[in-house]
Parts: sequence; structure tokens; C-alpha cells
Amino acid sequence: MNKARLEAFSDGVIAVIITIMVLDLKVPHDADPHALVPLIPVFLSYVLSFIYVGIYWNNHHHMFHAVHRVNGAIPWANLHLLFWLSLVPFVTGWMDETHFAPFQVAAYGVVLIAAACAYTILTKVLVAEHGKDSLIARALGRDFKGNISLAIYVVAIAVAFWERWIACALYALVAAIWLVPDRRFERLLDEKRKVES
Amino acid sequence: MNKARLEAFSDGVIAVIITIMVLDLKVPHDADPHALVPLIPVFLSYVLSFIYVGIYWNNHHHMFHAVHRVNGAIPWANLHLLFWLSLVPFVTGWMDETHFAPFQVAAYGVVLIAAACAYTILTKVLVAEHGKDSLIARALGRDFKGNISLAIYVVAIAVAFWERWIACALYALVAAIWLVPDRRFERLLDEKRKVES
Amino acid sequence: MNKARLEAFSDGVIAVIITIMVLDLKVPHDADPHALVPLIPVFLSYVLSFIYVGIYWNNHHHMFHAVHRVNGAIPWANLHLLFWLSLVPFVTGWMDETHFAPFQVAAYGVVLIAAACAYTILTKVLVAEHGKDSLIARALGRDFKGNISLAIYVVAIAVAFWERWIACALYALVAAIWLVPDRRFERLLDEKRKVES
Amino acid sequence: MNKARLEAFSDGVIAVIITIMVLDLKVPHDADPHALVPLIPVFLSYVLSFIYVGIYWNNHHHMFHAVHRVNGAIPWANLHLLFWLSLVPFVTGWMDETHFAPFQVAAYGVVLIAAACAYTILTKVLVAEHGKDSLIARALGRDFKGNISLAIYVVAIAVAFWERWIACALYALVAAIWLVPDRRFERLLDEKRKVES
Repeated sequence: MNKARLEAFSDGVIAVIITIMVLDLKVPHDADPHALVPLIPVFLSYVLSFIYVGIYWNNHHHMFHAVHRVNGAIPWANLHLLFWLSLVPFVTGWMDETHFAPFQVAAYGVVLIAAACAYTILTKVLVAEHGKDSLIARALGRDFKGNISLAIYVVAIAVAFWERWIACALYALVAAIWLVPDRRFERLLDEKRKVES
Repeated sequence: MNKARLEAFSDGVIAVIITIMVLDLKVPHDADPHALVPLIPVFLSYVLSFIYVGIYWNNHHHMFHAVHRVNGAIPWANLHLLFWLSLVPFVTGWMDETHFAPFQVAAYGVVLIAAACAYTILTKVLVAEHGKDSLIARALGRDFKGNISLAIYVVAIAVAFWERWIACALYALVAAIWLVPDRRFERLLDEKRKVES
Repeated sequence: MNKARLEAFSDGVIAVIITIMVLDLKVPHDADPHALVPLIPVFLSYVLSFIYVGIYWNNHHHMFHAVHRVNGAIPWANLHLLFWLSLVPFVTGWMDETHFAPFQVAAYGVVLIAAACAYTILTKVLVAEHGKDSLIARALGRDFKGNISLAIYVVAIAVAFWERWIACALYALVAAIWLVPDRRFERLLDEKRKVES
Repeated sequence: MNKARLEAFSDGVIAVIITIMVLDLKVPHDADPHALVPLIPVFLSYVLSFIYVGIYWNNHHHMFHAVHRVNGAIPWANLHLLFWLSLVPFVTGWMDETHFAPFQVAAYGVVLIAAACAYTILTKVLVAEHGKDSLIARALGRDFKGNISLAIYVVAIAVAFWERWIACALYALVAAIWLVPDRRFERLLDEKRKVES
């Protein structure tokens, strides 16, 4: 099996997901600039979801640099991740449509948790194939950011029923944590290059 | 002709198919969590269709590893498969919209049979090009899973008019059969590698 | 410049065009199987448009095998072709929505003519870059099929205002002419291989 | 990191953006040819947006020929550009829906400015990685076209509130400036080849 087509397919699916979200930005029929005001939270949720999907693409891209072999389980672990990402436009639209009602804000967090778990499963499947001493296993390490993110998501979901804007702020906080690029793979690949030369 | 672009185009079409299905998950306008209840069967049908399209991508991906030459008929056999897959979002949405009415549940099965036949035609065209002793011919073998699937689809379509949920369960059963990865290609490629080394 | 990315982008755009057409197949809300009857012409127009876009992808794919250099004009000639192809879902939907009214059936033909002209322009630009003795120039030859198609389109557009189903039959006839694979490129590439070996 | 996947993902997103705009061309329900008249400005705005997205793809494609290394910041600068491009279908649809109201025509210009700035940021990030003497830095040079475009956009936005069609004409003017292919990269790559041979 080759990883090139797995990457190409993932790129295609993520590219479609990230762009169909813009279809949820319903065009206001009113020419009045004030018609834009209710669109502001909708726009911000679009920005947040765009960033989240972008983060997943970016991390996926980084991680697959260290992938050398693809077994039968990896495509399914990957599709599982894509499944949860494909629900991001749905939960974003649902939040928008219900004016950020508590249940829907919590549902957004549930999809984010599910995507994070799917990503973790994918990393486990990749590490199982490559071995505990492989570059990929060492690069992933203890996954501090991943664990922190899960904790914040859980808090955000609980908080959503009490004060939904705090939940949204917490989702934005997780995105901010991940926007800082993940240098683990770069650092190890650099080390490897130095050792080889 | 080269197979790279055939794979890239197929990946693109399948990526779009698998993600536009999420547009059928119409966002409920009601903030009430109970508005989610009628969405449950819709969601399950989305999951099932996602898995089906994922299975086709996965098998397509595996099979094309053993493809060495592309003749004039192969792109058309491939487009024929993509055509039936492109109807999966339509029949999924139609089942959802009619609350899983018998005729629509049967129609879902008809599209699945058509896609399965299109896949079989594609394999025949590939084997015709590569010869009966080729890796691809031997890997495909007697296609036990394919025949079983067709039989279950036929039963499911008949049963749909009598007890539609059994039909849905049978569709899920076929998906489960295929989720177990198809190791025929891997096994033969491994053998080939051993022989060569 | 490299042709790989031009091919990848074209594949992406054509993949999206060919699959968004299925969104025009509006799901009937009625569970009654008879609700399917008005869908039959809509379905047939979807099949025809799918085949047309498939033919363009296939010919594009074949022609680019013989492309060796990409100059500044080629991406624009290519985008021009993609522009007219992107209107195929629109005119297909418009025909469907107006129950194949004469003007809309003619409009479908106009977009087909425009796409055919755009394809011809692309071939001219490619031949201009590669020279009159290049493989691509010789493979394209006198373009008999292209000229016949243009003539049939013109007749079909005129006939649409008098008997629209004949126009539709003529569109299907052109598709049938092209479904027969274009062996010009294969033949010349084979000859070239023989000469080289 | 490799630039291939960055290019593939960008191609995917831009391919989806350029084709979902056609979904904004709402099919008129009326069979009367006159129903096409109000579609004319909508169609022209589609053409303009198609050209703009095509220009960005084309320039992106050219610029990445000179990219040799991808650091952690480049994917984000690239996603930032894709974000603003993804809003082009939205502002196009909004202009159409409000019959080119002044505020919406200005909003179109704001998205164009934002995309232009995002492109400039991407070039700065690429130059920072490759160095001031790199091929890419020299090819981009003083970016005369970019600065002129920004100036015209600002004028167009101001003019939109006074005479909106002049604003639209100015947007078309900028597109025309860029349609002339940017030969800076080709020229330098040619020089480089000559020096090397």
C-alpha cells in the first residue's frame, strides 16, 4: 500500500469540508448593512471551524511525513477521523441556526472531542504499525497538547449549559493552543538528517 | 496512459460524494434537543452511506495497486462506477425525506446493487487488460464476498416492502462484511516481494 | 512550469462539477413511487451531463499525455474550458426546472458549443507551444469528430424551438460519438515507442 | 515538510471554491427567456469571481515553482489566503441577492483587499524562509501590480457608495491587469537555466 493516495484522498475530503462550510453563511436578502449584524456570530463560528479543520489538515500533513508503511487498518482509522471532521459543518450550522443555544454549543464540543479521539486512534494505529522506537512514536511522545485539549473540551461542554459564551471562548482557546505549530516532527526529522549526514 | 490521473480523479469524485452527503443532514431550526430525535435515523443512514463510499474507495485503492496498464475502456468502466456512487447521496436523502418508506429503502438497495455490478465490470475490464495469470486476476479470485453481497442486496430489496428495518439491517450487514479489510491484494503482493527477493 | 499541477487542478474542478450535478436531483418529498415519474427526464439529463463531463475529462487526460511544456497562455485556455464546463450543472438544472422548455434545451446546446470551442482553443494553444510536427499536433490531426459535433450542436439548437426531444436526441448522439474512445493519441504513442525501441 | 501536499490541498480548496460559485446561479423557475435578463448581472459577477479565483490559482501555481522549503508558518499563511478566497462565493452571492447594493459592492472589494493582503503576507513568509537573494525574492521584486491593485480596490470601495457600476468596472480592471500573465518567475527560471547550462 502507498500513503500517497491516502494523503490525496484526505486532502480532497478536508478541502471539501473546509469550503462547504461557507455555504452555511446564508446570504442575507436585505441590502441594509444592518442585516450583517446577526451574521457576525455566524461569521466568527465559520472562522473557528475553518481554523479547526485547518489545524487537523496541518497536523495530519505533519504526521504523515513520518509514515512509512500503510496497513489495512490505517485507511479505516483515517476515514473515521474524516467522518467526524465532516460533521463540523453540520454542528457549526446547527449552532448558527439556533443562535448558539446551549445544547447546540455543547454538541459542537462533542464533535470536537470525537474528532480529537479519532485523531488519537489514528496515531495509535500508526504507532502500532511503525513500532515504539519509530520516528513517529517518538515524535508523538506524551501528547501533552492532546490531553489538555480533551480536558478543556469536557469543561466547555459542561459550561455550555450554564454560560455558552464561555464554552465558545474555551473552544477558541484550544484552537489557539494548536495554532502554535507542532514542532515535534520537524525537530526529530532535523535530528535524523544530522545523524545521517 | 497512466493510472495516476485516473486515481486522482476518482479520489476527487469520491471525496466530494462522501462530503456532500453531510449537506443532506438538514440543520433543525429548533433549539430544543428533542429536535434531534427525528435526526437519529437520518444520522445512521449518513453513517452507513459514509461507510459504503469509504469501502468503495478502500477497495478501489487496493485494486489499483495491482494495475499496470490503462486502456481506453478502463476510464469508462471507472466513470460508470463513479456514476452509481454519485447516486448514493441522492438515495440516502430520499430515504431520509420519506422516513424510510419501503419503496425508497428498496431504491437504496438498487443503487448499491448497481454500484456493486459497476465494480465487478471494472474488475473484469482490468483483468481482460492484464491477463488471466496477472497479479490482479489472481488477487480477485472467485470474488466470494462480492457474490454474497449481491445475494444479500436482492433479499434486502424484496424484504424492504415487507419489513423495511430488516432491509436496512441487511445493508448494514454487507457493509460489516466489507469493513473487514480485503487482504487478497496484500497477501499476493507480499508473496511477489518474497519471490523477487 | 509543470503540467502536473494543471492536471491536478483540472481533475479537482471536473470532479466537483460532475458531483454537484447530483444536488440538482431534488429529492421528492412524497413517498409514493409515482413521485419518481417526473424525475425520469431529470435523471436522464443528469446521465447525459455526467457522460459529457466524463468525455471532457477523458479527452483532457488523453491530450495532456502528449503535453511536454506549459506556457503562460495554457493555464488560461484551460480555465476557459473549465468555466464552460462549470455551467453544465446550471443549464442541466435549468432544463429540468422548466420541464425541457425549448429555450432552455437550446441553452444547453449553447453551453455545449461553448465548451467545445474552448476545448478547440486549448488544443490550438497547445499545438502553438509544441509546434506543427509535435506528437500533439499530429495526434489531433484534422479533428473530424470535433467538427461533426459542432455541426450537430448547431442543428440541435435550431431544432430545439421546433421539436425539443429531437434536440435532446442529437445531444445524446454527440455523446455517443465521443464515448467511442479517441485512439489517436494511443496509436501515435505506440508508434513512437516502436520507433524508439 | 514537502510542498507537494500544500499545493495539492490548495488546488483542492480552490477547485471547490471556483465551482461552488455556480450554485449561486439560481436556476429561474420560469421557462420564459426573459427570466434570463435579471440573471445577466449575476452571470457577469460569476465570470468576474471565476477570473479572480483563477488568477489566484495561477499566481499561486507560479510562485510555488520557486519554493524549495516549507516551514511551520507557510501552511498557515496559505490557509489564511484560502480563507479569504473561500469568502468570494459568499460576497458574490450577496451582491447578486441585493441587486448590487452599494454596501454589498463595497463588501466585495473588502474581501478582494483581504485576499490581496493575505497573498502579500504569504509572499513575505516565503521570502523570509528563502532569503533576500533567493529566486523567489528576486522574482517577486517590488510587486508593482500588487500595489496598483490595492490602490484601485480602495478607490473602488469608496466609489461603490456613490456610483456602484464604476466600482464594478474597477474590480474588472484589476482582474484585467492580472490576466496578463506574470512573467517574472518564468524569466528568472529561464535565466537560471541558462546560467546552469
